[in-house]
Amino acid sequence: MNLETRCIDTIRCLAIDAIEKANSGHPGAPMTLAPAAYALWMNIMRFNPKNPNWFNRDRFVLSNGHASMLQYAMLHLCGYDLSLDDIKQFRQLGSKTAGHPEHHLTPGVETTTGPLGQGVMAAVGMAIAEAHLAAIFNVEGKRIVDHRTFVFCGDGDLMEGASHEAASLAGHLGLGKLIFLYDNNHITIEGHTNLTYDDDVAKRFEAYNWHVLKLDDEGVAQDVGKITQAFQAAIAVDDKPSIIILRSLIGYGSPNKQDTSAVHGSPLGAAELKLTKEFYGWPLAPEFLVPDEVKEFMGRAVTAGAAAESRWNELLQELHTTHPDLGTSFQQYLNQELPLGWADQLPIYSPSDGAVATRKVSTDVLHAVSKQFPWLIGGSADLGESTATFNEQSGYLSKAAYQNRNIDWGIREHVMCAASYGMMVHGGVRPYAATYFVFTDYAKPAIRIAAIMKMPVIYIMTHDSIGLGEDGTTHQPIEQLITFRATPNIATIRPADANEAVEAWKAALERKDGPTMLVLTRQKVPVLDRSKYAGATGLHKGAYILSKEKGISPQAIVMSTGSEVQWALQAQELLWQEGIDIRVVSMPCWKFFRTQSKSYHEEVLPKAVKARVAIEAAAPEGWHEWVGADGIVIGMSTFGESAPAQDLFKHFGFTAEHVVAQVKNVLAF
Amino acid sequence: MNLETRCIDTIRCLAIDAIEKANSGHPGAPMTLAPAAYALWMNIMRFNPKNPNWFNRDRFVLSNGHASMLQYAMLHLCGYDLSLDDIKQFRQLGSKTAGHPEHHLTPGVETTTGPLGQGVMAAVGMAIAEAHLAAIFNVEGKRIVDHRTFVFCGDGDLMEGASHEAASLAGHLGLGKLIFLYDNNHITIEGHTNLTYDDDVAKRFEAYNWHVLKLDDEGVAQDVGKITQAFQAAIAVDDKPSIIILRSLIGYGSPNKQDTSAVHGSPLGAAELKLTKEFYGWPLAPEFLVPDEVKEFMGRAVTAGAAAESRWNELLQELHTTHPDLGTSFQQYLNQELPLGWADQLPIYSPSDGAVATRKVSTDVLHAVSKQFPWLIGGSADLGESTATFNEQSGYLSKAAYQNRNIDWGIREHVMCAASYGMMVHGGVRPYAATYFVFTDYAKPAIRIAAIMKMPVIYIMTHDSIGLGEDGTTHQPIEQLITFRATPNIATIRPADANEAVEAWKAALERKDGPTMLVLTRQKVPVLDRSKYAGATGLHKGAYILSKEKGISPQAIVMSTGSEVQWALQAQELLWQEGIDIRVVSMPCWKFFRTQSKSYHEEVLPKAVKARVAIEAAAPEGWHEWVGADGIVIGMSTFGESAPAQDLFKHFGFTAEHVVAQVKNVLAF
Repeated sequence: MNLETRCIDTIRCLAIDAIEKANSGHPGAPMTLAPAAYALWMNIMRFNPKNPNWFNRDRFVLSNGHASMLQYAMLHLCGYDLSLDDIKQFRQLGSKTAGHPEHHLTPGVETTTGPLGQGVMAAVGMAIAEAHLAAIFNVEGKRIVDHRTFVFCGDGDLMEGASHEAASLAGHLGLGKLIFLYDNNHITIEGHTNLTYDDDVAKRFEAYNWHVLKLDDEGVAQDVGKITQAFQAAIAVDDKPSIIILRSLIGYGSPNKQDTSAVHGSPLGAAELKLTKEFYGWPLAPEFLVPDEVKEFMGRAVTAGAAAESRWNELLQELHTTHPDLGTSFQQYLNQELPLGWADQLPIYSPSDGAVATRKVSTDVLHAVSKQFPWLIGGSADLGESTATFNEQSGYLSKAAYQNRNIDWGIREHVMCAASYGMMVHGGVRPYAATYFVFTDYAKPAIRIAAIMKMPVIYIMTHDSIGLGEDGTTHQPIEQLITFRATPNIATIRPADANEAVEAWKAALERKDGPTMLVLTRQKVPVLDRSKYAGATGLHKGAYILSKEKGISPQAIVMSTGSEVQWALQAQELLWQEGIDIRVVSMPCWKFFRTQSKSYHEEVLPKAVKARVAIEAAAPEGWHEWVGADGIVIGMSTFGESAPAQDLFKHFGFTAEHVVAQVKNVLAF
Repeated sequence: MNLETRCIDTIRCLAIDAIEKANSGHPGAPMTLAPAAYALWMNIMRFNPKNPNWFNRDRFVLSNGHASMLQYAMLHLCGYDLSLDDIKQFRQLGSKTAGHPEHHLTPGVETTTGPLGQGVMAAVGMAIAEAHLAAIFNVEGKRIVDHRTFVFCGDGDLMEGASHEAASLAGHLGLGKLIFLYDNNHITIEGHTNLTYDDDVAKRFEAYNWHVLKLDDEGVAQDVGKITQAFQAAIAVDDKPSIIILRSLIGYGSPNKQDTSAVHGSPLGAAELKLTKEFYGWPLAPEFLVPDEVKEFMGRAVTAGAAAESRWNELLQELHTTHPDLGTSFQQYLNQELPLGWADQLPIYSPSDGAVATRKVSTDVLHAVSKQFPWLIGGSADLGESTATFNEQSGYLSKAAYQNRNIDWGIREHVMCAASYGMMVHGGVRPYAATYFVFTDYAKPAIRIAAIMKMPVIYIMTHDSIGLGEDGTTHQPIEQLITFRATPNIATIRPADANEAVEAWKAALERKDGPTMLVLTRQKVPVLDRSKYAGATGLHKGAYILSKEKGISPQAIVMSTGSEVQWALQAQELLWQEGIDIRVVSMPCWKFFRTQSKSYHEEVLPKAVKARVAIEAAAPEGWHEWVGADGIVIGMSTFGESAPAQDLFKHFGFTAEHVVAQVKNVLAF
């Protein structure tokens, strides 16, 4: 057996041993793809195992994330900080080897995958980030940004709608350094893919303007040489993304399970594992065997990687010498620091400016911060004008102008949000992404991955309630607010007026440990008079006393967010006229409020005041945490309707008068 | 001007007048597509305006739903119950002419559209339903089920990932009676589509095994004859779905706005409206003009439709005579009545059966009810075994066997859920759809439309919590439960054990006014001893006292759902040993509980008992409605991890001991 084969069989047997030990996992794909992984990692990719964050490394994305053991075996053998003991702890509590690859757990995992289609979309973002930064920083002879994004994907990825959005966009943008390897094994969980799937994948990707390579000779999936050549051919075409369609047999080597769905998602079982190792000519014991010569040979990736990074560091030094401005700027893109006083240039609004939609405020802020922070980049899902997110200091990013900072994602919300976290994990840019709030539904799986990875992508989600008016039921968010409030790691902020919207943007930019969802109005809302009410910086505490009661203690508390705060304040005036003294609390971000001290909670929402009303034009779920079981929530327990905004608010009870009535109701309990 | 042109200009001018009056809407597409709509409705489609529910009508889906005024104009002119006054009320509160077409509002609207991609997916479901029923009920010479599904769609639909899932599946299934017309106008909201989109659509659809027709001569979008011929050619190919790619000019006729994005989503404005009517040679006044000869000519659809339905009714009568069994069966498929005592055949579980996963119970129920109800049809997104939804009484539906009742949707959750509501609005079948609960994220936009339309699709969502174990973070739902609880019209049910799971299925089948989401465990849960605890039929009230306190009044109430109920019950025993007397409430469906009387609420959750603890392995949001502001929720405020289920439950505090501790905490307040 030659060394190459021994390396490949080591990868395979580490995978099947780990899955067997865990009694859980997906052996089929690692067994099949070990030669392809070997070809890519050993013959093609540049990476530094001892510094997984080396900026100019090639990116590898395992979009078929259930094949995680393939990646763990490669990381271990190539010398990443992932030990054999870690591999033995596959899928166990607290281990670095989770069921699916997790960015935040495992050194060398570029992005969390598992939900199918995510990896292929995230990779598009990585390739966009690379192309963008390369266009800005590369100068003749010094290509400081020069790496590729490689993706392994399977049938599941290509069946998901996600793959369409990703491939259509990547083809449009001509992302020549994006290379997919499609494991065309014809087997899916339920059996042969022809049960449900017979796309002509080559033709489909040609329709997307991709460079398509077909490897369909018998046994080609075992042929490191041919696979390597295919990667080289893919690299040679640099104005189109490439896909290598690799005909393979799932579970290669398992005498009884190869080429069947039985090997997809369950351990081989002791007997079949034995037969499989025999087929490979592999010793049955010990388990988790890594022959010394394999360890030594694949471990050379460490030296090669260190050398590659070192050459790059020299190049970077040279850039600093020959182009000091570029060098400094490059560091700024990487560090993305917010200098002291950065927020001084943000707009401040006064009531005399007239009512203004919070989405329009967002534009003003975006323009201000875009000037300061060139690494801020983003766009919308074909709603640049409606979401007010076009950055006028730049044009649209295109294959003729990768340096531009506006991305027209097309009507493709899912890839927008996935590529945005892909750009963020790539580094060097800070992305924002925008659409109507209700259409977060189309991108939820991607937003969730960003949340899992704690990536501080900024979502600018406008048209935040029935207040969007005539577009009607299908366009009016109801359950979306509580959805994102309940999603861990996301800060969901719904500002009440222009100045809160500015503070919300400030909070979003300052946030480093998770996505921020800015939930903004389509319609105009009054600018609150901050000489009369508390300042908008209270937003950073999540909830604050916007308008205090007149007496020592309020009879009731009315809390609200967004455009409905105006009616809470009007209700306060009306109630004062009737001698009822209430407090109005603005609660733009529950998550921020939860992190405040008990005493601050008591200060804002004193336990003694049980009479509480909340008003928010969204599903009422969740509000009882703040109003208590006996409080009243004025919310939306049905879908909306199509009508002018003012008619809808009235129809659904979002008025000062209704607040007044409900305050009286809670006081009457 | 000939009559045809006058008809078409009437459609256009009704649209632009209505949009102008509403000062809101999308004139571009109606202006462009009026000739195509005229060709389809007047020359091709069979429908009965006076009976929009005639079973064998052709279905029309406006997937580019923002063109709603096109559909309203057609419905009005063809004699549906939609008056000129209704059209004048476009986008106003309480009108039948909402911003986007709404199935529940407007006679003749087959399915609610607006969110892009939904219509193209729903139409696949309609075509599947037709093919399925045709395979079962058509006999030589009597094609009782014989109609087509026509779809208008735009760039937005085809950019969405949804279109990939729909087209890939439809091509695979060879749905020859599904016909798309793609309005290839090259303009999107942000400008020319080449900003972001240059797919070769023809090639792409060929890759999906579609029949592709290109109409790209200049002016062809105005040519009723050529468009009619294209539809005829599409009809002639009956073993593949067809797409007609129609080159068009958006906003045809507007001298200054045609072929620009300005005409997409805003009224023309008075001046441009005037110029446009002049271009058409149309009188400037009155607005909403319908010339008598147009009214008369297009109104003939009423007579034609009545005649078509009448012929079909005769055919149906003949079927009843020649094939009485088929005739009776056909009625059963249409009515889907549940006979008295239907539920007697459902399984009953006892503790001696051993612990059982609620997903496995679902299989048992599915097998039982599938025998009784042949109109029950469905499948999973390539997770038939994991979700336990394969109906063993039938095979997979395929183009060779449309009569089969299992649908392998492929790894395409979105089209699964959209086509499921499409099947439901089609009628004659009752669909269920299954995947892992977390992957409802991939299908949320479709589930939302089903909810808006109150379609009683049954979602079987398994692997309902961290209890799925090793697959880890990305596969473990957290925020999904509250998302669906907060979505209007959906009954989200999370049964605690096998017998609750049976009742949950019963509730789902009995439900007629909205989707039901069955949230089921992967892991085994104990069968509760109903001789000791209350019976599982309490599920139908949403919440019930599962295990009563020993004394007159409980010191605390512990409430729970799903697999966590077992720990609530164990905690009760442990607390009794310590002399603390609590009540355990099972709360499988908040929605059902909300509809109960105040007195029942008081009976289950007496206001006097303020000490309350909830335990549920999901985001805690929402529970304070039941436990109050000072209650304690044992929930998941982070994402999960990858490990065996029992380790995860312990790690995250889902144990009887933790419940005990928290009950003591609430009692100590």
